[in-house]
Amino acid sequence: MKIICPKGELLNRINIVLKAVPAKSTMPILESIVIDVKQDTIKLIANDMELGIETIAKGEVIEPGSVALNSKIFSEIIRKLPDNDVTIQTTENYSTLITCEKAKFNISGSSSEEFPFLPNIERNGGIVLSQFTLKEIIRQTVFSIADNESNKIMTGELFEIKEDELKVVSLDGHRVSIRKVKLNQPYPDMKVIVPGKTLNEVSKILSGEFADEADLYFTDKHVIFEFDDTLVLSRLIEGSFFKIDQMLSSDYETKVTVNKKELLSCIDRATLLVKESDKKPIIINIADGNMQLKMNSSIGSMDEEMDITKEGKDILIGFNPKFLIDALRVIDDEEVQIYLINSKMPCIIRDKEESYIYLVLPVNFNSAVQ
Amino acid sequence: MKIICPKGELLNRINIVLKAVPAKSTMPILESIVIDVKQDTIKLIANDMELGIETIAKGEVIEPGSVALNSKIFSEIIRKLPDNDVTIQTTENYSTLITCEKAKFNISGSSSEEFPFLPNIERNGGIVLSQFTLKEIIRQTVFSIADNESNKIMTGELFEIKEDELKVVSLDGHRVSIRKVKLNQPYPDMKVIVPGKTLNEVSKILSGEFADEADLYFTDKHVIFEFDDTLVLSRLIEGSFFKIDQMLSSDYETKVTVNKKELLSCIDRATLLVKESDKKPIIINIADGNMQLKMNSSIGSMDEEMDITKEGKDILIGFNPKFLIDALRVIDDEEVQIYLINSKMPCIIRDKEESYIYLVLPVNFNSAVQ
Repeated sequence: MKIICPKGELLNRINIVLKAVPAKSTMPILESIVIDVKQDTIKLIANDMELGIETIAKGEVIEPGSVALNSKIFSEIIRKLPDNDVTIQTTENYSTLITCEKAKFNISGSSSEEFPFLPNIERNGGIVLSQFTLKEIIRQTVFSIADNESNKIMTGELFEIKEDELKVVSLDGHRVSIRKVKLNQPYPDMKVIVPGKTLNEVSKILSGEFADEADLYFTDKHVIFEFDDTLVLSRLIEGSFFKIDQMLSSDYETKVTVNKKELLSCIDRATLLVKESDKKPIIINIADGNMQLKMNSSIGSMDEEMDITKEGKDILIGFNPKFLIDALRVIDDEEVQIYLINSKMPCIIRDKEESYIYLVLPVNFNSAVQ
Repeated sequence: MKIICPKGELLNRINIVLKAVPAKSTMPILESIVIDVKQDTIKLIANDMELGIETIAKGEVIEPGSVALNSKIFSEIIRKLPDNDVTIQTTENYSTLITCEKAKFNISGSSSEEFPFLPNIERNGGIVLSQFTLKEIIRQTVFSIADNESNKIMTGELFEIKEDELKVVSLDGHRVSIRKVKLNQPYPDMKVIVPGKTLNEVSKILSGEFADEADLYFTDKHVIFEFDDTLVLSRLIEGSFFKIDQMLSSDYETKVTVNKKELLSCIDRATLLVKESDKKPIIINIADGNMQLKMNSSIGSMDEEMDITKEGKDILIGFNPKFLIDALRVIDDEEVQIYLINSKMPCIIRDKEESYIYLVLPVNFNSAVQ
């Protein structure tokens, strides 16, 4: 195998496939990047068995072939080379010579025979999204997946298509995040659960440009993201997602309209007084025209008043401040509407069109102490 | 005590004194910042008993007094406040109310009576440096102090004044770094050892601007840095510094002139192949017109040739690559001169005027294996 690639292109492609290299594996071959060179394509591949990535690097093929190189050593060498053409050549026993200008590196490689290449999955009827939109809906929902594996389904996100609408849902037992986007055309109905880890990694390699497109393909067991000469293949999480519709009643007793940035800054300040260990709630006292936020902890106390517009009843309610912060951070609107029923029922932050819905459960607090 | 300060000014001053707050201390009072308010000055103070910092914050004094506040909580609260005037007021038992716009924080403080205020040291005949120069000479030498305390003197830097020259020296047993700067006038001769930690912290709060000045005062036991309404007081390290003049012979057998950036990049690339645990040398083979650099490790091998200008003998010599990198990184010249005697003797990198001298000991290597 012998190829010549510009350093920048090669490094860019390495950084893409690195997202599918496991940090540690009982199968050392999985810690490799495979360079698979055919007559006219240079493909880089990594696969941790849940998530696999293939990407095509632009370059010149001198001699086809393939080799598996330790991902860490290979990526660090390329990163530090001068900004010029890089030649990669395997010699006997997969020993690999990497040269660029006057620098010559020799590292040992291994056969790609043992490497689990990505299965060839037929792609039919994919949906098309802008990379911007895909990156955004991941960012706006992925924070509320559960991070422990005790409930596998909670570590993924529901991707549901109905006609020309894609709905993405994540939840962790304390809160629910929902985003909806319009698709460019109607598609057949579909419901799958995509691992959160996959979405996090995909999000890192998406360009985020509105003009760039990404294609999504779904099968019974897999999802494929295809964009910019890159293919990301991930297993789906098996099972049925939680029924959430009954939680999302549109009834409310109190509706608050408030400046998002002010509210976010205020809650953020209050968290200063919360140590990781003691989960102190922020207490919100909603009255006509203003809302008082209070935090009391062993470190000190904080209280702040904000101007609001209120419809309906007064209410006193407590929340884990982190959950409110997470939701407010990913809302772009200048003003948000918060809907409440009573101090035991979740609050819902949503826009009129329900393009986003963030539901957060309240926490109990001793109002006498507060 | 009651004061009003703009948030930006207050935060800036807090960040300065934080450099003298110990991460952990057996004396909890040392983890405080003291606000000491007189009729017309607001002073912030921190002191870890080795290093003490006082700084004057611009603001309005409503009522003199003083209070000690936990540095972490105090700094985090100020950091997160809106960008407006901040009022700090102590009530009974040093309880402290911090208000800004509609935000109100209440935290407990304590009396400053137990706090070790900085001793009042008479300042005579200080030397004047630009903050730029002071920050630069620290950066260009402090990397080669020893980081373990087994030889206390090696954890500091020699500051030596002779006539109108300041010489700063650091060494760690494997290398020596020397920088010399011209002062604005002759001063009495002087030799002290300033703790490296002090220099690191001072360097962080210096503006680095050429037009800003810093005054340095030395006593038998202390050094004082004074600049921008800030006073940094540090103990000196007692003892005599190492005699280094005999190591700095100007004799040489080989003189190499080489592009600094190319050499640095090349050695930097070679370190990829070095694991923290095995201290592999970089082998440099100097011949007429070119220099070959080689690295061999369990990970792989690297070799690279560079164009050089050589005077004198050919030489084959090995170095710890990190030591060469550290020195080359802080040299601003485009080309450097390297002076060598033989493979057992240190190399010296210096300019013609000897405004900088970096001495690095070579390492033994088995040339048969290389």
